[in-house]
Amino acid sequence: MSLPSLRLKANAERRLRAGHLWVYSNEVDVAATPLNLFAAGDQAILEMSNGKPLGIVALSPQNLICARLVSRDTKHLLDKSLLVHRINVALSLRERLFDKPFYRLVYGDSDLLPGLVVDRFGDVLVVQLASATMERLKDEVLAALLQVLKPAAVLWKNDSAARDAEGLARYVESAYGEVPEWVALEENGVKFEAPVQGGQKTGWFYDHRLNRARLAPYVKGKRVLDLFSYVGGWGVQAAVFGASEVMCVDGSALALDGVERNAALNGVGEKMACVEGDVFEALKELKAAEERFDVIVADPPAFIKRKKDLKNGEAAYRRLNEAAMRLLSKDGILVSASCSMHLPEDDLQNILLSSARHLDRHIQLLERGGQGPDHPVHPAIAETRYIKSLTCRILPNG
Amino acid sequence: MSLPSLRLKANAERRLRAGHLWVYSNEVDVAATPLNLFAAGDQAILEMSNGKPLGIVALSPQNLICARLVSRDTKHLLDKSLLVHRINVALSLRERLFDKPFYRLVYGDSDLLPGLVVDRFGDVLVVQLASATMERLKDEVLAALLQVLKPAAVLWKNDSAARDAEGLARYVESAYGEVPEWVALEENGVKFEAPVQGGQKTGWFYDHRLNRARLAPYVKGKRVLDLFSYVGGWGVQAAVFGASEVMCVDGSALALDGVERNAALNGVGEKMACVEGDVFEALKELKAAEERFDVIVADPPAFIKRKKDLKNGEAAYRRLNEAAMRLLSKDGILVSASCSMHLPEDDLQNILLSSARHLDRHIQLLERGGQGPDHPVHPAIAETRYIKSLTCRILPNG
Repeated sequence: MSLPSLRLKANAERRLRAGHLWVYSNEVDVAATPLNLFAAGDQAILEMSNGKPLGIVALSPQNLICARLVSRDTKHLLDKSLLVHRINVALSLRERLFDKPFYRLVYGDSDLLPGLVVDRFGDVLVVQLASATMERLKDEVLAALLQVLKPAAVLWKNDSAARDAEGLARYVESAYGEVPEWVALEENGVKFEAPVQGGQKTGWFYDHRLNRARLAPYVKGKRVLDLFSYVGGWGVQAAVFGASEVMCVDGSALALDGVERNAALNGVGEKMACVEGDVFEALKELKAAEERFDVIVADPPAFIKRKKDLKNGEAAYRRLNEAAMRLLSKDGILVSASCSMHLPEDDLQNILLSSARHLDRHIQLLERGGQGPDHPVHPAIAETRYIKSLTCRILPNG
Repeated sequence: MSLPSLRLKANAERRLRAGHLWVYSNEVDVAATPLNLFAAGDQAILEMSNGKPLGIVALSPQNLICARLVSRDTKHLLDKSLLVHRINVALSLRERLFDKPFYRLVYGDSDLLPGLVVDRFGDVLVVQLASATMERLKDEVLAALLQVLKPAAVLWKNDSAARDAEGLARYVESAYGEVPEWVALEENGVKFEAPVQGGQKTGWFYDHRLNRARLAPYVKGKRVLDLFSYVGGWGVQAAVFGASEVMCVDGSALALDGVERNAALNGVGEKMACVEGDVFEALKELKAAEERFDVIVADPPAFIKRKKDLKNGEAAYRRLNEAAMRLLSKDGILVSASCSMHLPEDDLQNILLSSARHLDRHIQLLERGGQGPDHPVHPAIAETRYIKSLTCRILPNG
């Protein structure tokens, strides 16, 4: 196997040697190894400035992140065989963690498979290819998944924004077998169905599994409000865990159809109320109607999609959480989540503190949760950590 | 009620208005309100530089932290009545969270009771008074606890280093009833006895409860090593959760006596091995003997007690974790904890990353845990957050 080389500039290798997997285009010694000689998805030996090999990278020469390390062993090209090995390593963790086959099976860089995400819903797999390399290896990815997991159906859910930077078109299509519109799963002992074709991302957010499990001690006999409920991941679990009443608010009719479907699946339909509409408007109306809730979950979509959205996004988190606090009963619990990778946990905490002070409340931060272990964080790559969930108790001052 | 005033310098009030509770001695306008007019434990109205009241503080005039806000309402002096109210508010959270009476009942500033810690072991309470104010209110504290909880016994466990800065002597003595040497408790369904008189801190570390609960999916059928085991909080739970074998290492004979006692209580004595001695030495010997473990818990005492210990302490965490990684089997789990308030979570994560890279391993950060909800964080007071627990998977590179 004779691969071309991609050479780093002097001092550009430090970050990669310390564990990172990404090469930025301005780190490449383009005089020695011009990037324009590579096609998207090509693989190369990554060399330090002194010529010593660091491993094998897969290239996206037109992207700012122009290459990602796929192996630190120069003998291992990313091919079906390495895909099978890496998927098996990823699977062995999930099988150790979960007794049922519902989880994120592959989480990109953290599982040393940059650009690949696989969510498992029993014998249905939903796959996101987010890099030119994975798109080019599409047949090998499918073959590897079929070999390791023998699924009944596989869906390409290739409609994420990450594809734009890689010059890839967006599409959703069946890769194998018959993919149903609603697919069954189980989380924390609660049954769900997720709209894997028409829903958000892969159709379900396994990342909050442990945070949702931690709702249990807070909701027994309580009135719960689930903001941005999607198909009821939080709200239906709250109902099953013993909430007396749950109101779900979401802007999407498909999502609320999911809430009703999932509530019915668990026999808690009569506890649930669904409100379709803008969440900020709904918060105003609930305030005007003097409604009160004992527990409020605020788990919005990312308000900060790019770094430049930070200021506006922080203001939106602030508005949302302060409006939620106003609806809490006297000794209330707010579960405030964020999936914005650009919002540090400490910033969210400060937003909650200043909202509470503004309303003259005392705030206790009871629990801080992150993404579940089927979304491992790669400690050298800050971008692999994105979920925050802060459980707060909001009390009167005095 | 006519209280003296304590006046802040201009601009010193911002931090307190934003939620903080502490006044530093250099923030006081000593020309207007000389600190030396106050005795330790006196209470005063805290005033902004313009004379507007912020609340009531309790003073420790000789300490760097010379006053702590005990109420934002100038009508509420800290007395038995406010103690009863605050203890009831604290109790109602714990009763919501736990179905058995084993928890930290009061956690200082976070429960708006600066200087007071109470751990509950059923009908035995272990109390730490860490401020001159609480020491002076000792009778009221005891009366409030008796009124709210009707315990059988109360222990003053007043031997913490925090007392030195407050000019208080250290002592351990019974405050009420007969305090046994070993006291029963239950955590995550596992039975324990803790040496409340002769053990560390209050005798037990409730703070890691949720992190220990999360051991369950990782230890089934596995060989586990518990470093700095104390009385077996992690190790005995690992055994009960299905570990095939558990080795506990600690330097204290009393602690290992506790491990044996607690293992026997749960019928897992035959799975446990105890090694008495220096943990770093034991790690060397285990390496020399080519021992391997599937799961290692490293939960040492604080290596960084003061800020100036940071560099040496980080080096100790690094040595400990790297030595632990060397003993892991090929696909191993390391639970790396720190209770050093001065060590940020990100620093511990970086220590783990660089240790793994040094050993040419791939590290996945699976879970990050903090202190349990009976140790709420006061979001304005960084010092109230101290527990870190990072669960990592350590894999060969390739």
